[in-house]
Amino acid sequence: MLNVIGYSAAGPHDKLKPHRFTCEDPRAIDVQIEVMYCGVCHSDIHQVKNEWSNTVYPCMPGHEVVGRVAAIGSGVTRHKVGDIVGVGCMIDSCRACEACLAGEQNYCIGPNSWLATYNGPMVPAAKAPNGRNSYERDNTFGGYATAIVVKEDFVLKIPHNLAPEKAAPILCAGVTTYSPFKHWGVKPGDHVGIIGYGGLGNMAAKIAKALGATVTVFTTSADKRSLAEAAGAERAILENDEKTLASLAGTFDFILSTVPTKHDVNPFVALLKRDRTLVIVGALEVMEPTNNMPVAFKRRSIAGSLIGSIAETQEVLDFCAEHDVTPDIEIIPIDRINEAYERVEQGDVRFRYVIDMGSLRTASE
Amino acid sequence: MLNVIGYSAAGPHDKLKPHRFTCEDPRAIDVQIEVMYCGVCHSDIHQVKNEWSNTVYPCMPGHEVVGRVAAIGSGVTRHKVGDIVGVGCMIDSCRACEACLAGEQNYCIGPNSWLATYNGPMVPAAKAPNGRNSYERDNTFGGYATAIVVKEDFVLKIPHNLAPEKAAPILCAGVTTYSPFKHWGVKPGDHVGIIGYGGLGNMAAKIAKALGATVTVFTTSADKRSLAEAAGAERAILENDEKTLASLAGTFDFILSTVPTKHDVNPFVALLKRDRTLVIVGALEVMEPTNNMPVAFKRRSIAGSLIGSIAETQEVLDFCAEHDVTPDIEIIPIDRINEAYERVEQGDVRFRYVIDMGSLRTASE
Repeated sequence: MLNVIGYSAAGPHDKLKPHRFTCEDPRAIDVQIEVMYCGVCHSDIHQVKNEWSNTVYPCMPGHEVVGRVAAIGSGVTRHKVGDIVGVGCMIDSCRACEACLAGEQNYCIGPNSWLATYNGPMVPAAKAPNGRNSYERDNTFGGYATAIVVKEDFVLKIPHNLAPEKAAPILCAGVTTYSPFKHWGVKPGDHVGIIGYGGLGNMAAKIAKALGATVTVFTTSADKRSLAEAAGAERAILENDEKTLASLAGTFDFILSTVPTKHDVNPFVALLKRDRTLVIVGALEVMEPTNNMPVAFKRRSIAGSLIGSIAETQEVLDFCAEHDVTPDIEIIPIDRINEAYERVEQGDVRFRYVIDMGSLRTASE
Repeated sequence: MLNVIGYSAAGPHDKLKPHRFTCEDPRAIDVQIEVMYCGVCHSDIHQVKNEWSNTVYPCMPGHEVVGRVAAIGSGVTRHKVGDIVGVGCMIDSCRACEACLAGEQNYCIGPNSWLATYNGPMVPAAKAPNGRNSYERDNTFGGYATAIVVKEDFVLKIPHNLAPEKAAPILCAGVTTYSPFKHWGVKPGDHVGIIGYGGLGNMAAKIAKALGATVTVFTTSADKRSLAEAAGAERAILENDEKTLASLAGTFDFILSTVPTKHDVNPFVALLKRDRTLVIVGALEVMEPTNNMPVAFKRRSIAGSLIGSIAETQEVLDFCAEHDVTPDIEIIPIDRINEAYERVEQGDVRFRYVIDMGSLRTASE
């Protein structure tokens, strides 16, 4: 048994607090990872606060996990002790449905869908002699912890030329934006719009530019305009600048909405060319109503996309390493996590918090 | 000058009434058509009542027009006097934009978009000597009339083995449903859903079946279930039958919504397989809000589509002739048009009214 310490919330109105627990030793195909860094995703906050009505408590978030392999099971061949590796949003899937067989684990339609890195149902490694689950918990615990144990084929390789702390947000924010760019065929010369400029928007703008697109960022925050342009956007526009929006009608090949809460996409639908798509990845909730008139008049589509596959996650890590694409981050110790949540909710982070998990080991020693 | 009689509305609250007007003689590329039949589309009602806020009065509807060529201009080569021909929703387009050059006139992005068969801006054939438009009206008049004059390349050929009165609804209802089936690649063996079973739904179900799909119709009307099944649907389901809907989750390759007014597509989004699309062709207005969670979790899309191109209109006419696909219609004389509108609005037509324009000629003689 492995003794681990992490930060969890006991209920939807509770702050995250230190939480000690034990973890079984790695099975044959497991990799035990000493967590170095973990990104703070807006989903962590949705989940901790039970905003998707499915949170099991205690809830220990974290699905942008980078660390060092501390131990491996006897059958592990992909990773070795000492490797710098990553874990994203998934740690398993059914492996048998058509989506899994197609390598799209993120769309697994097995009985339990894919297994979330945190807040997924706990799958026992073995039954205790009394037939009961030998674990002390019902749900998976994520990367806000000193260690995590994951099956080797859901563990990603972090390229050598990618700083571990910068790699962390690529594991969710990166692949969540890269996957729809690839699926909808964003290519050099395309005009790509990014709605919202937070953690996802920052990665999306950089990745789209590295794919050869001309990037326009739409933000509600005047001070983010210059930051987006400094990060490589051709231009950043205030979402309420109706005159500029009108001048851009029908000029976009692809638009990605990264806003994490309910919003109105109608002003952006009008910016798409004929037959093009606006994809919503940020808000997993009921949106403002859409007017089908401008959708139908240009045969446009409004779609959604969910993270990315394991192969795409490795691909975006390699792509970011090759093209020197990294998120803008602020590193914090774990004891500032509750304050960080407040600032994320206020859109006041530039642009992704990454927790230095060394701070937790130091504090607990 | 040609003396014509039709039925027009003088304002949004007025009934349609007989209206005499004159029409210039055909120019070199024009075809003058003696109208035999005209379908009654729900759009006619939206337009007459100014429900899209763009109606110019008097408004003479009708864009499912079938007739006999009565005269042709000197340069006309495609049609000859006596031919049975059709006119759909468009009578011209800019012919220069990328959509027109791609043969997709229905997505024309020229300065005035495509020219609608009725309620489009009147384009003068010639200026009167005083420099004023020589027409007595500002907007185009549709097929609720004894005659219509249209440029030859926007006139369709009605196949010999298609009854003229049955061909009329194919010119709008037919192509509006056929075009998205073709664009999104509906193929033999696909499971296709049709939401709403009125004029569009009736054509959609028959065309989808002729394309080789297995068709499920969703209706709010219990008595339409057996009619849809008789028309070729594998099954027809009441939209509020939550149990049956739940059993069909994730099983559809394509869903077409033909409901002509604002409605909730969320229960149907859940029925799509991964990566599939629900296309709204009926309602050109603000819809009920969509929940992006089920959209994103299966990378689904919600799209719109607008009628079809001239080439697709000819294609669907030929397809329907080849596969013996015809709409279920009720033929009415023109003096029953106001009553027919009320019944269309109540969903009480089985399934498309077609006006016998001979009734107008007889009455006016």
